[in-house]
Amino acid sequence: MNERFSSMLLEKAVSEFAKLPGVGRKTAMRLVLHLLRQDTAAVEAFGNAIVTLKHEVRYCKVCHNISDTETCRICANPQRDASVVCVVEDIRAAMAVEATQQFRGVYHVLGGVISPMDGIGPGDLQIESLVLRVAAGGIKEVILALSTTMEGDTTNFYIYRKLEKMGVKLSAISRGISIGDELEYVDEITLGRSILNRTPFMGGVGS
Amino acid sequence: MNERFSSMLLEKAVSEFAKLPGVGRKTAMRLVLHLLRQDTAAVEAFGNAIVTLKHEVRYCKVCHNISDTETCRICANPQRDASVVCVVEDIRAAMAVEATQQFRGVYHVLGGVISPMDGIGPGDLQIESLVLRVAAGGIKEVILALSTTMEGDTTNFYIYRKLEKMGVKLSAISRGISIGDELEYVDEITLGRSILNRTPFMGGVGS
Repeated sequence: MNERFSSMLLEKAVSEFAKLPGVGRKTAMRLVLHLLRQDTAAVEAFGNAIVTLKHEVRYCKVCHNISDTETCRICANPQRDASVVCVVEDIRAAMAVEATQQFRGVYHVLGGVISPMDGIGPGDLQIESLVLRVAAGGIKEVILALSTTMEGDTTNFYIYRKLEKMGVKLSAISRGISIGDELEYVDEITLGRSILNRTPFMGGVGS
Repeated sequence: MNERFSSMLLEKAVSEFAKLPGVGRKTAMRLVLHLLRQDTAAVEAFGNAIVTLKHEVRYCKVCHNISDTETCRICANPQRDASVVCVVEDIRAAMAVEATQQFRGVYHVLGGVISPMDGIGPGDLQIESLVLRVAAGGIKEVILALSTTMEGDTTNFYIYRKLEKMGVKLSAISRGISIGDELEYVDEITLGRSILNRTPFMGGVGS
């Protein structure tokens, strides 16, 4: 035990916080002392929130997103279009798409991307369940919304090969210049692709 | 409730983490998903550490440092010199002094510094208990180790006036050039003071 700590309970709490990614011991100390200044109910709310989440969290049996119930709120929502499935890497990607408020379909969370370097193959991901989901019928379009990395591209291609003969429309999120970017600062690959993949100009702003 | 979250439990946990100082919602999400990937025992250890600390923490009746027991480990240690008391602002300052391994005396934690701007007066700090501690006898030296800010200086002076006639040696941590600093980058006030407060050169490195 470190003599710097006058309290073992404090040392234990700081050690636990310092295990979090990107949190060093000084930051951990600052966070723990901050919580210690809050009232007991607030500290209990903090501690219980993460423990309860861990105990009670489930994964949606349809889309594999994190859920409180057997079927997640998005899959269970009758106002969402269950015939359009957006394939994402993880829950954070699903949340990023939700935040745009541009998508009213449903999701399929793969749980990662194919990455031989990290020992992640198709069998480690929810790809087979996507194929079964499409095979079960009712799905018109599958939108591939993975990261624009080599691993994302590999996974896109793998899924494409699995689904191409199943009579479902396959699309991928568009790649190009970010809104607000100045052309001279865009990297050559993105700019080159955005010229090749140019879209008809409809006369509107941002179209 | 935010529809972006497929799980209310997840949203609750993220909200709790986002209350921590310096933690935004994206970081909170990253920390919560990190914990969710750990096993249940690890998550319980994390949650329980902070709740247990909040429930069971006490403050040492002698030095007011955070403690697991009525008297803290430093005050209770017979190998520490109880006749030399280092006055610090808070527990982090006490830990910083401990980390130097240069001090074998004991502490007195004020719980802050006098700051009229923040509404903190002498009565809000453990100054009266310091006076009583000195009055009780057995203390030869009081080392003032507060921050070198206006508030720290004000508090130093206030304590000096309270203790100056009590027959105890009063000292303050030395101020000057940090070890390893190059003179041209030192601010003028520090450099000026370090010339005025020059110390006899003993011929050694760093002396």
